Amino acid sequence: MSHSVDQQICDGWPPEAWQDVVVVAAVSGGADSVAMLRALAGLSADSRRNLVVAHFDHGLRERSVEDSQFVAELAQSLQLRCEIGHADTDLHEASAGSMEEAARNARYEFLTKVARRCGARYVTTAHTADDQIETILHRILRGTGIAGLAGIPLTRELAPDTTLVRPLLTCRRRDILRYLQALGQSYIDDETNRDIEFVRNRIRNELLPQLAEQYNSRVDDAILRLGSLATETNSYLDSLADGLIETHVSLREDFVELNCYELSLLPTLMIRTVLMRIWRRMGWPEQDMSYQKWDELAELTLRRSVANLCLPGGVIATRAGASLRLSRD
Amino acid sequence: MSHSVDQQICDGWPPEAWQDVVVVAAVSGGADSVAMLRALAGLSADSRRNLVVAHFDHGLRERSVEDSQFVAELAQSLQLRCEIGHADTDLHEASAGSMEEAARNARYEFLTKVARRCGARYVTTAHTADDQIETILHRILRGTGIAGLAGIPLTRELAPDTTLVRPLLTCRRRDILRYLQALGQSYIDDETNRDIEFVRNRIRNELLPQLAEQYNSRVDDAILRLGSLATETNSYLDSLADGLIETHVSLREDFVELNCYELSLLPTLMIRTVLMRIWRRMGWPEQDMSYQKWDELAELTLRRSVANLCLPGGVIATRAGASLRLSRD
Repeated sequence: MSHSVDQQICDGWPPEAWQDVVVVAAVSGGADSVAMLRALAGLSADSRRNLVVAHFDHGLRERSVEDSQFVAELAQSLQLRCEIGHADTDLHEASAGSMEEAARNARYEFLTKVARRCGARYVTTAHTADDQIETILHRILRGTGIAGLAGIPLTRELAPDTTLVRPLLTCRRRDILRYLQALGQSYIDDETNRDIEFVRNRIRNELLPQLAEQYNSRVDDAILRLGSLATETNSYLDSLADGLIETHVSLREDFVELNCYELSLLPTLMIRTVLMRIWRRMGWPEQDMSYQKWDELAELTLRRSVANLCLPGGVIATRAGASLRLSRD
Repeated sequence: MSHSVDQQICDGWPPEAWQDVVVVAAVSGGADSVAMLRALAGLSADSRRNLVVAHFDHGLRERSVEDSQFVAELAQSLQLRCEIGHADTDLHEASAGSMEEAARNARYEFLTKVARRCGARYVTTAHTADDQIETILHRILRGTGIAGLAGIPLTRELAPDTTLVRPLLTCRRRDILRYLQALGQSYIDDETNRDIEFVRNRIRNELLPQLAEQYNSRVDDAILRLGSLATETNSYLDSLADGLIETHVSLREDFVELNCYELSLLPTLMIRTVLMRIWRRMGWPEQDMSYQKWDELAELTLRRSVANLCLPGGVIATRAGASLRLSRD
């Protein structure tokens, strides 16, 4: 195993952990996902039994049928099963921002379906360290807290028993391109990115090179380091919050009850973290919960008063005495 | 009190907290420090007894004598005592980076001396929210952890019984300029900044306007918010670390002994935080302790082995059995 891409996958996600279960590899046909597929196939002891290729055709590019064909042929050449999915609705009809989101949702829905069909333990996507840097910098510019500063997580639960993994998350794009060149492996130059993720591409192609030239030639490493320190901090705060939930919160199927008397002795930071963990564990939508909303809710936990609060996603908070009850319509 | 500058000082540092003790105001003669002085003088019930103006002449600008004169006259017009200090050595002889640091050190040494002479409880400097934004962005670009992300603290201990306070830290520069205009108060247009802090000025005059135009018109608020969330996180982690020090560390006059058995059950993040708190409390130099050094030392706390580690600032770490001893030459 002479190549750094193989090595980094093995360091973060050793083959022993996944080669005896079914893994669905999400492959767009771009450099990153093609490299991921080749690396996983090379590292697996029995890739034909173990690996499934999944490709989602968003129908957003003129050449998207050719892309699907490219991925199908690549899978065939590696003797891997290949599942191709198509967008049900015309994603073009959504506006720019929501089109991006709609495309992502449709893709993850497809991947979850394929995983269920194949009995897959893991779904892998080809996010790289470069994606990580761009994500973190983008969030800093748009506004984020310490949680958001952690960037793209290495893993997340996609469905019960199915985990999404990003085995290339520590690999730099330059190493991936070298890897493909060494293999003589072609890929699709994905110009979709330029249309869909306009801001992200400007961060990649203009801002980061400018920052490297004018401020710090290793600005990318600085951002990655900050992201990993934020991940470390969040995971510690989350573990503390989980301990607090154990003692002071009762999570039921359709409502949650908090013992505010004990929680109100904590700093607001921890109350917010407890609330965010509750949202996560209840599967409630976090997207529209702004800082302000978390703060309002934390405030309701701290103050002894009778009050109601209607929150995004149809969650209702009712404070009565020492107890705060959260429930969803 | 119709003006936002007065209001923000009162919100963060109410006059009741400082108008009965001696306060030394560090005044360069630039807009920020002149506004701070005028505001403090206006808010104080008896500024002639309460307020002392301190001005440090770095000798770095041709017009520095005129600057001193401007500050002295301003103090006189407000009927305040004024102390002027001069750099002992030629700061020009140091190289660019260390000149900046040498100038800062000389200035703080002077301020500490003035505070001692006047029996001052507080020394105030005129750092603004704009300085804060620039500092945080600069640190992100150079590389920082969550602690550094908090930026400039509102207060820090300058000497026993003397606290440095930054009453303008939540004020924006545009409000400060409006405030001075409303008062008809002149100030020195400090071109030194442009020479000494080249990078910082580029961040202020080029990068931040570009980010606001191309990525987020409220990027400054996003950075300030991130800084204040980092401050909140750090202060909670610090309080947890202080609790751990109470139980598992003995701080003596010239050495520190850690009970590694108990500490090694914690995540590395908390061990690092404990170590940083020890450095702070012992008054050991933190400047040259890189991430790598903190990590090496945390590693020594975690692993049961006999080993020594020489650290910057002449600190020596000796691990023996369950105990880690830190001492300084």
